[in-house]
Amino acid sequence: MAVYTEVGEDELAKFLAGYELGEMMSLKGIAEGVENTNYLLHTSGGYFILTLYEKRVKREDLPFFIGLMEHLATRGINCPQPVKNKQGAALGELAGRPATLVTFLEGLSIRRPDVRHCGALGEALAELHRAGNGFAIRRENGLGSASWPQLAASAEKRADEIAPGLAALLRNEAAALVKDWPKDLPAGVIHADLFPDNVFFLSDRLSGLIDFYFACNDLLAYDVAICLNAWCFEIDGSFNVTKGRALLSGYNAVRKLELKEVAALPMLARGAALRFLLTRTIDWLNVPAGALVRPKDPNEYLKKLNFHRSIKNASEYGLSA
Amino acid sequence: MAVYTEVGEDELAKFLAGYELGEMMSLKGIAEGVENTNYLLHTSGGYFILTLYEKRVKREDLPFFIGLMEHLATRGINCPQPVKNKQGAALGELAGRPATLVTFLEGLSIRRPDVRHCGALGEALAELHRAGNGFAIRRENGLGSASWPQLAASAEKRADEIAPGLAALLRNEAAALVKDWPKDLPAGVIHADLFPDNVFFLSDRLSGLIDFYFACNDLLAYDVAICLNAWCFEIDGSFNVTKGRALLSGYNAVRKLELKEVAALPMLARGAALRFLLTRTIDWLNVPAGALVRPKDPNEYLKKLNFHRSIKNASEYGLSA
Repeated sequence: MAVYTEVGEDELAKFLAGYELGEMMSLKGIAEGVENTNYLLHTSGGYFILTLYEKRVKREDLPFFIGLMEHLATRGINCPQPVKNKQGAALGELAGRPATLVTFLEGLSIRRPDVRHCGALGEALAELHRAGNGFAIRRENGLGSASWPQLAASAEKRADEIAPGLAALLRNEAAALVKDWPKDLPAGVIHADLFPDNVFFLSDRLSGLIDFYFACNDLLAYDVAICLNAWCFEIDGSFNVTKGRALLSGYNAVRKLELKEVAALPMLARGAALRFLLTRTIDWLNVPAGALVRPKDPNEYLKKLNFHRSIKNASEYGLSA
Repeated sequence: MAVYTEVGEDELAKFLAGYELGEMMSLKGIAEGVENTNYLLHTSGGYFILTLYEKRVKREDLPFFIGLMEHLATRGINCPQPVKNKQGAALGELAGRPATLVTFLEGLSIRRPDVRHCGALGEALAELHRAGNGFAIRRENGLGSASWPQLAASAEKRADEIAPGLAALLRNEAAALVKDWPKDLPAGVIHADLFPDNVFFLSDRLSGLIDFYFACNDLLAYDVAICLNAWCFEIDGSFNVTKGRALLSGYNAVRKLELKEVAALPMLARGAALRFLLTRTIDWLNVPAGALVRPKDPNEYLKKLNFHRSIKNASEYGLSA
């Protein structure tokens, strides 16, 4: 949520000369996307998002992200579409960074989703999973279950500054979840970060999905679990089972969860909570001097993790039998 | 350069229901404006800037700022135009903040202005001064020369952390400038912050002026002095006399500086440098914990101040006799 890299007018003009987008009309740094620098660009050819990839995004992953947006767009998912330059390439370079232009997507993200938003999100997630079929490039989940013990170790020294006992909890949860993590569930392309910020609505209709920079190949139901965490808890930390039911029913209406996915849901949700607790803990403890971004509070995900540890059966998320 | 206040979808919808702007289509927090929160709003009625006034802007000053933009726009200055709601009011309230909608202005600000940009800026500044004539509301310059001794005193304790001897320099300069500050020069509405960020160009043509939140009544030539500081120095701290000549010639072509304004220019430029040195020093020493904005380096304006202290005659800025 910041502009990390400033773009000079000369280098922007040179970059845009490689595209057929007409004349530059305005460029505004926008507060969107935690990992990259984003500008809203207006040319006589339309509105576009210009993204400069900062160091947390690996250059070798860019063909996956760009290819995925193209793949999904041709399969009817309303997501940003990469714009190709005159050489037919969607990936360029600007201000010393890999850079892309994608189409601008209309819509507003909802800060406080209600039950209907959760239902629409469930449907859209299942459609995304279906549309991801047949995408040729693979990308491992760098923040998947296998990475958690190492993340827990890297946070160990100072985690108790956030909450007493957090270091031990992270270590024990990571070890337990890696040991019992399900292996034989349906897998495919997942978004892996489908928080309300990344979902647009136009008058209550879900109008688009953005920010595919955590997308990867992993268990489809794990993506459902990430969304249960991101969409169905109230600000006070309580789980809203009506929202959970709406999300899961919406998903099931498009792609029915298999019985073994349902059975695994409590563990997947616990893992999803741990994954965000781990990265938020590390970000919280490593705010660089002069940082322009305020890290998110890890405690929110500590509460969610503890909630899922108490769950015995997926029906407690609102799934009807 | 930050989004200080987040706006929820419900309160935004309620706010926009008071306007005749059609349906909401998107809202992006933009990294523009140091003092306020700005969003780029797209509705079926067009593109607008939504500004939420944060605490540094005084509520009683808002009629001046809003009225000035309306006054200037009707006199041919290309600046944002306040949009009135169904009650005919340009000032509303949103997320507990005073809020306005203004028209979106196309154009790009130039990070490294060249000589032609400086010439165009000089002309536009003089046109602005001319268009300000007859504006009925007055606003004193809260950061004018009379305020400098107090600002210097408030920075005194820790200024030497920035540069040895800075506290004494600030105190002595403030005292000297207040004593000798010219009183009988032409006065009117000045922008008072016309840095390159606040000036838009479209293909080398100056296309608009923004950010009137420091505008006030003060000496017109003091505004010229602020611009000399903001536009005509190189990154290494040297003054580019060719840029100075272009700016002053551009200004003179529209509104000829009087002889006494020319004679006062070295002192005005020294005062303008002190004013930004003072506020940058204070901002530098008072970065709040968790700040999202990195303060600007005061040393840039220390160098400029020292340059002007060495100037004997306005011809050294590039003014032809």
